[in-house]
Amino acid sequence: MKNTNAKNLPRLNGNLEPQILKEAIKQFKTPLFVYDLDRITKRYNELKEAFGGRKNLICYALKANSNLNILKHLHSLESGADCVSLGEIKRALKAGIPSYKIIYSGVGKQDLEIQEAINLGILFINVESFEELLRIELIAKQLNKTARISIRVNPNIDPQTHPYISTGLQENKFGVSIEDAKAMYIHSKNSQSLEPIGIHFHIGSQLTKLQPIEESARKIASLTHSLIALKIDIKFFDIGGGLGITYNDEETINPYDYAQAILDSIRGLDVTIICEPGRYIVGNSGVFLTQVLYEKNNSNKRFTIVDGAMNDLIRPSLYNAYHKVVALKDLEETSATDVVGPVCESGDYLAKNVLLPKLEHGDILAILSAGAYGFSMSSNYNTRGRCAEIAVKNGEIKLIRKRENFEDLIRLEEI
Amino acid sequence: MKNTNAKNLPRLNGNLEPQILKEAIKQFKTPLFVYDLDRITKRYNELKEAFGGRKNLICYALKANSNLNILKHLHSLESGADCVSLGEIKRALKAGIPSYKIIYSGVGKQDLEIQEAINLGILFINVESFEELLRIELIAKQLNKTARISIRVNPNIDPQTHPYISTGLQENKFGVSIEDAKAMYIHSKNSQSLEPIGIHFHIGSQLTKLQPIEESARKIASLTHSLIALKIDIKFFDIGGGLGITYNDEETINPYDYAQAILDSIRGLDVTIICEPGRYIVGNSGVFLTQVLYEKNNSNKRFTIVDGAMNDLIRPSLYNAYHKVVALKDLEETSATDVVGPVCESGDYLAKNVLLPKLEHGDILAILSAGAYGFSMSSNYNTRGRCAEIAVKNGEIKLIRKRENFEDLIRLEEI
Ligand SMILES: Cc1ncc(COP(=O)(O)O)c(C=O)c1O
Ligand SMILES: Cc1ncc(COP(=O)(O)O)c(C=O)c1O
Repeated sequence: MKNTNAKNLPRLNGNLEPQILKEAIKQFKTPLFVYDLDRITKRYNELKEAFGGRKNLICYALKANSNLNILKHLHSLESGADCVSLGEIKRALKAGIPSYKIIYSGVGKQDLEIQEAINLGILFINVESFEELLRIELIAKQLNKTARISIRVNPNIDPQTHPYISTGLQENKFGVSIEDAKAMYIHSKNSQSLEPIGIHFHIGSQLTKLQPIEESARKIASLTHSLIALKIDIKFFDIGGGLGITYNDEETINPYDYAQAILDSIRGLDVTIICEPGRYIVGNSGVFLTQVLYEKNNSNKRFTIVDGAMNDLIRPSLYNAYHKVVALKDLEETSATDVVGPVCESGDYLAKNVLLPKLEHGDILAILSAGAYGFSMSSNYNTRGRCAEIAVKNGEIKLIRKRENFEDLIRLEEI
Repeated sequence: MKNTNAKNLPRLNGNLEPQILKEAIKQFKTPLFVYDLDRITKRYNELKEAFGGRKNLICYALKANSNLNILKHLHSLESGADCVSLGEIKRALKAGIPSYKIIYSGVGKQDLEIQEAINLGILFINVESFEELLRIELIAKQLNKTARISIRVNPNIDPQTHPYISTGLQENKFGVSIEDAKAMYIHSKNSQSLEPIGIHFHIGSQLTKLQPIEESARKIASLTHSLIALKIDIKFFDIGGGLGITYNDEETINPYDYAQAILDSIRGLDVTIICEPGRYIVGNSGVFLTQVLYEKNNSNKRFTIVDGAMNDLIRPSLYNAYHKVVALKDLEETSATDVVGPVCESGDYLAKNVLLPKLEHGDILAILSAGAYGFSMSSNYNTRGRCAEIAVKNGEIKLIRKRENFEDLIRLEEI
């Protein structure tokens, strides 16, 4: 079997060449997340250009990777921010993103979060239910302010992705039906404390088929036309995020086709397009580096035990997600192995049944496409400190988050 | 439908009566973990008494819940510690547990961790492979010390539990076969740097059937007899953890029957029994408290949106685990609802299809049996600060870990 070895690395991971990764490890040890800021720039610009013909704002979805340095970088590209908590709003602001480029989404907003969002004067709040709309109205009224809102409409279309990250079907918790949306817009128009300025949908994550997005956009555009007929002044058409990336050999949606489909669907509407990509911007721009501790065989099954684990990168365990694994070692001969971590659960694996050369203590594996939903979902399970994070820009390595040490882990505990 | 309401709370959760929970929320807000130290004492003593007839050491498995205050409490009961990382060893020591009561298990140990474990003089290291044994030997030699070890033997028995937490079958990463174990013991006996003093097995977590444990114990006991015949002086018989608890209506293993089965299997062996319970000690001793933000209906499906989420308690998403949900509200009339959090994933739920009374903004739900693998697996996903943790002892409430604020979340990042 041929090794998916180091030679294949650059294709999927921009400028993160083995030499740079080895240098990063020399300085900062393993396990480690390394991000390629130049690749992030490229992805951002691709999308930006695709929508170039129209007024548009890209609001990067922080949930995918909210490291402040990455946000600062995206801010330098003029990105806005899609936030789902007050914490994320504070991160966006701290990175320099101005409040008028920040939107606040999410199905469960706390009173304090709503208050702050209104006080900070962000662009708008994406509202997920009538109950939430009333709550926002009440809070805005108490603050003597007007809350700019957009309503998340559930187009009831199957996005054809993993059930955990599919959000566009009506039997899930997200958004409201088209009928309910109408009633909510009318309520908002008549309210002193609400100003409906946008419309929003998001049908799922890691989308690789254009057709469900196109269909959704058409449905929502048609609703927008009827709202405008009701003199509800929709200025922003927020198409959510969800653009898929290549983890293995998935065919993905071309940003140009994506933009064209959206532009087609909104013909005749004078709106600014807002797009909330997370994974598309950062997913392929990051790798997770881990070191081999041992190899072992149990009943003729090969295991490669590494120093990274499910607490660092939970996607394989949680979503059964696939990440390509590349050994930074030039051996051609490979055999199948499970790459597993030190955590005391059978569910602690990074890859199953991948072809790798024989590995020894200290060899390095790069887990590709780990820039999105990697560090941001990591935990301290098994009292493991979270990894350091490194950014690479123009070939320069920079520490953007320190590795957690024992003192960091117990700082808030009182014995 | 009848409400599984507040009246049912005490049965499953010791002294955590609604009044105390409400007081905890008043002081520390939601979401919140609350632990009942008196229930922990009771569980510890039950197990201790069950093994009373024999030399034994209970080494609490920190991974289930490693809060320092809980460890200090267990130390006051004379518990030892089962640790799977240097971080956990440091926690145990910090809580006062002496090194001679600490064992170090886990499938992937780093060089530095092995060094420290040897230097600290812990009771023994549970070894998971021949490769690891050689590594430990090498490190002990470099340190000019002898490493006390025990070998984790995989009895190849189906524990009949969730595949993620089943660890006793040979096709998984844990332990070694009986034949390999023998070779490893002989190697250790002949080594200047290794001292084999124990034998270990652990077949899985949340075990509710005694028979697989009994069968495993017999297999391992028989191996122990042959090791002793080879003049390998096995002093500790480490039966792992895994005792199941009641989340819903599971019949669990009685500690007395458990101890008897073990004692039967080791008849004729002069060994100290080591037991590594995690979940059994803390699982039913903790509740997760969350506040209702809104209720909404999508296509006639009811959703209760709360301020707690998968980042706080990932067991439902990760293992499809069931936790009883109790509304701290005395309404008899109930209907089915999904209790979901604010995180932007369909996988973000705490309970599906549970019967609850009509709920309003601010109502409190107690998610029961959340003391194990709750906080210890929690993350900052969506830039959500981790919860505060509270201990209740003798009716007194004590903060044992502060809620994380925004500054805590970004402390290690460099913009
Ligand atoms: C409303 C919303 N916008 C944007 C995103 C970002 O998705 P992705 O990272 O797939 O682009 C999500 C992800 O769940 C979301 O729920
Ligand atoms: C070796 C070992 N010991 C003890 C435990 C604790 O298990 P439990 O919490 O089910 O008792 C585990 C859990 O995975 C384990 O792997």
